[in-house]
Parts: sequence; C-alpha cells; structure tokens
Amino acid sequence: MSKVIYDRVALIGLGLIAGSMYHAIKRAGLAREVTGFARSGETRDIAREIGLCDRVCDSVAEAAEGADLVVLCVPIGAMGQVAQDISGVLKPGATVTDVGSVKGAVIEAVSPHIPKGVHFVPGHPMAGTEHSGPRSGFAELFDNRWCLLVPVEGTDQAAVDRLESLWKAMGANVEVMEPDHHDLVCAVTSHAPHLIAYTMVGVADDLRRVTDNEVIKFSAAGFRDFTRIAASDPTMWRDVFLSNKEATLEILGRFTEELFSLQRAIRTGDGDLLFDYFTRTRAIRRGIIDAGQDTDAPNFGRGGSGAGDRASDDRASDD
Amino acid sequence: MSKVIYDRVALIGLGLIAGSMYHAIKRAGLAREVTGFARSGETRDIAREIGLCDRVCDSVAEAAEGADLVVLCVPIGAMGQVAQDISGVLKPGATVTDVGSVKGAVIEAVSPHIPKGVHFVPGHPMAGTEHSGPRSGFAELFDNRWCLLVPVEGTDQAAVDRLESLWKAMGANVEVMEPDHHDLVCAVTSHAPHLIAYTMVGVADDLRRVTDNEVIKFSAAGFRDFTRIAASDPTMWRDVFLSNKEATLEILGRFTEELFSLQRAIRTGDGDLLFDYFTRTRAIRRGIIDAGQDTDAPNFGRGGSGAGDRASDDRASDD
Repeated sequence: MSKVIYDRVALIGLGLIAGSMYHAIKRAGLAREVTGFARSGETRDIAREIGLCDRVCDSVAEAAEGADLVVLCVPIGAMGQVAQDISGVLKPGATVTDVGSVKGAVIEAVSPHIPKGVHFVPGHPMAGTEHSGPRSGFAELFDNRWCLLVPVEGTDQAAVDRLESLWKAMGANVEVMEPDHHDLVCAVTSHAPHLIAYTMVGVADDLRRVTDNEVIKFSAAGFRDFTRIAASDPTMWRDVFLSNKEATLEILGRFTEELFSLQRAIRTGDGDLLFDYFTRTRAIRRGIIDAGQDTDAPNFGRGGSGAGDRASDDRASDD
Repeated sequence: MSKVIYDRVALIGLGLIAGSMYHAIKRAGLAREVTGFARSGETRDIAREIGLCDRVCDSVAEAAEGADLVVLCVPIGAMGQVAQDISGVLKPGATVTDVGSVKGAVIEAVSPHIPKGVHFVPGHPMAGTEHSGPRSGFAELFDNRWCLLVPVEGTDQAAVDRLESLWKAMGANVEVMEPDHHDLVCAVTSHAPHLIAYTMVGVADDLRRVTDNEVIKFSAAGFRDFTRIAASDPTMWRDVFLSNKEATLEILGRFTEELFSLQRAIRTGDGDLLFDYFTRTRAIRRGIIDAGQDTDAPNFGRGGSGAGDRASDDRASDD
C-alpha cells in the first residue's frame, strides 16, 4: 500500500527544517519525488553531496514547477520574494505552505502572490535545535512535536486536511489556529524567551570583571540552558522579532514589569513574595512534564548524561 | 587500601546535595560513618526508611558531635542558626563546610560560631537538578561538575586540601576563589538567569489570553528550558537572592539595560543590530560545548530523546 500523500514536494531553502522534512518524508515514503532549492550555491553543492533531496535545482522556479506541494523554508523576511518568484510556475491545484515561526507577517507577504486555483496553507512546525544549515536535519525532528496550521478564512478544507496528514505522517501532532492567536502564543512560549536568553548571554559576555572563561566553565549552573537557546540561527530570529513585533514587545513589557517587582522584592528583602512566586512557577513545570513535552530525569545542568541520540558538529549557516 | 578521607562526616539538612554527597561518599568509600540530621521529622523518617545516612540523628548536636567534617546543607538563611547550635559540640581539629550558593553572606553568618581549633572552609558545589528533598540525591550529581572552595584568609591549608580531596573523590573538579568574586560569578552564571527564568514563567502563567494549556503544550519552543530552571527549590532560591542581593541586582540592572536596547531595535526595525547581537551570542555556546559543560547533540526542545540516566518522580520539599 502506497503512503504517498503528494506526488512531488518542493522544498525551498535547505536548512534544518527542510532537511528534516526530507528525511521524514523518505522515512515514511510520503512523496514520489522531492525537489530542493537553496539560494546559495554552496548549500546546493552540499545538498547534492549528501543526497539531500532527490533533485537539487539551480532555480527556485525549476524546483517549484509541477510540484503538488511547495514548502517555503526560508527566513520570514525572504518569504514574499520567493512567493513572487514561483508564482508563475505553480501547478493548478497545488498547495503552498511555509514553516515560518510568525504567521501574520508571512500571510501578508505571501498571499498576494498565490494564483487562483492554488491553495495557501501557512504552517509552523514547533521543533528545532540550535543547529542550522543543510547538514543539520534529521528524520526524527518532528516526532511528537506540534505543527500548527494557520489557514486563512475560505481555504479549501481538503487542502488543509491533506497537509495535516503529511505532518502527522512525518511524526507531528497537528493543531489548527487563528493567525493572531498563533503569533501571541508563540510570543509567549518562544519569541520572548529567545530574546531574553540572547540578552542574558550578551550581558555575561559584556562583563569585564567576570572572564569569558569563567562564564563558560561555570555555565552548568543555569546559564547553560540560556546559551543553548541563544545559539539559534541569527537570521531566522532577526526576522521573527521584526515580523512579530507587536506581540513580542507586549510580552517583553509584561516581563519587564514582573522582573521589576521581583527586583524590588530582593532590594527590600521581601522573602515571602519571592517564595510564593517561585512556588507558583514550579507547578507549571509539573504540567509540562505531565503533557509529555519533557522528561522528569534530573539531567539539568549535567553535560555528560542524557543527550545522545545523535551528534552533529556542522554549523553551516542557513540559506 | 582505604580511601577514607574523613573518619566521620555529618550532613546537616537532608536534601538534594546532602543526599548526593552521601551516595558519592559511599560509592568511593570516603568515610567510615556518615551521620545525618534534618529539621523535619518527616524528612528524618524518609531518610531512615531509604537508608540515607548510616545514622540519622534526632538533634543537630548529636549528628555533629565527634564528626571530622560537618557539612551544612541547609538553606542559606538557616546557616547561622545551625552553626550556633553545633558550636559547642564541634571536635577540635574538625572542619566545617557548607554547600550554599552564596558565600559572602554565609561566611558572615557562620564564622562567628566557629570555635578556635575548628576549620571553616566554605564550599559551593555547582551542581543540581530541579528536584529537592531526601529522595532526590544520586551519586553521580557531582561527576565532572565544579565545586568552588572559598576559604577566608588565614585558613589552615591542610584543611582546605583535605576537603578538596573529598570533593575530587566525589567526582567534582575543584577551584579556589575569593568570596566576592565567587558571588559575582554566580550572579552572572546562575542567580540572574534563575530570576529571569522565574519571571518569564510567571508572565506566561499570568496571561489571560493564552491558556495554561497552550503554554504547556507548546513549551518545547524555548520556554521549556525556562520552566526547568524555574522549578528549582523555592526556599533555596529565596535565600540566594536575599543573600546575594548586591551582585544579583547589579547584573539584573545590566540585563534590563541590554534588553531595552534590543526592544528598541525591534521597535525601530534595526535588523542589523539584532543580527550582530545574535551572532555574537552563538559563539559563546560553542565555547561551552568545547569546555565539556554540555554536548552538541540536537536534543534541544525534544522531550523524548536524551535524558535518561535516571528518573525520579519525588518532589518532597527540602528540609
């Protein structure tokens, strides 16, 4: 029994997400052919060398032409241009989707370039590592992670269902969400935490009285988790913050407000306020473990243990 | 050949660190007898039930009497009182140490109660999990982690060396540091990151438009690492912030300053500033991996993989 969901899939941009989609599609036999394109010639060469995509094309139009599903895996700031570049070659009845972490801005940039008869179903797989580039993908990236589909009103339900079945077959759980709500939820669970982690790592790097060597040596004491977040792809994250400006700034405003109240409690010695606050946050952690999004193993702060399914030392930049 | 370093060790306070010390001492046969005391009768009962310590005592004086090494494993705010309570029974030539995350305040609270002829060598094992209580300890906690020893001027060098050899035999790397510098380094690498994580988790919990369920479900996208940090013991962390007030507030001031400049860059659309900042922080992560304090495996955001050396579902509170 064939499990093919789309005859031909085109992956535009060959970084972590596209690479992982390719491997996940092949793992389950979900497409007959996967074409790929990356703007950088170096990335295309690597993709050919390591066999990422059945056919790596030298133009974005060539990759997208005749595809039943075109997946835009480029930074958010490049989505509009790519949509314009492929607009003329899209096959009638095809679906265009994307994997951007912000949905309002992508819908605004891409929608005008989608021809009649082609379905646009924006998507956002909530999975990643701090690695990027064509060598960073792996088939298991989406296993038991969430993929949010964010179709605009009036989208063909059959096209949404078909894309949902692809994501499920790649291992993900799927949920459908409104664009504005998506961008707020991600500002809370992802975008604001990333900016905060970047900031804390930057502060540590700036300090003159604590050496870099000390910061690195003693990082296991909490700081380590921040550096992991703050090692994510700079281009991707620049575009996320610029394109989800309003929601991110709102959450950061709330964050600053709360931080000031905790700072004041420290300054005035209000131990009860601190204790109550910390007790409340502990319960949230329990909820996350119960929801299966993390394990309860005490490997926090322990470099040697855990990890382990696969290692990669490639740090090539995203296309 | 005997590896005994101290004939008798007394562990005061039976939480994560004391429990792990007991198991690490037993693993390598580093003491002939380990006594233990916890303020809470419930904790003492659990300790007896699970065989934590060779002898669990019903008074702190009984546990400390005749010990060659007394380890204060209580929250920082309780150190002074405990030191006073054992002051009269300390054996001449014995060493008193502690495992508090702040050193200036502990030295100030404990030193006045140390009798002549007893050595006080403050210490700080930089290892932990988000778990606490008598069931949370395990022998491997200190393996390849740092333990900082922070002796005050004039401390007997042989006493410092002996304590250093114990920590090394329990698996840790040891470094000696000045108290003020210790408290600043920890404010950067541990205390400020913890407060920031607590704050971000609190903000997410406060939001009305994003449900708790959504925050928990989609936590893998960065937020998850914050909740892990923010699940640490509330009593311990309240005392850390109150007793390392100055350094923590200084770092938080720097942090807020930097955060504001990144917020302004988002508001004004200054993508270059964001990109450069994020590129710089990425390099720090590489340094941490090179220093062996973390692995390069792409399990970030992936609950199912990694972890694994042992699981514990106990969340009993610290004594």
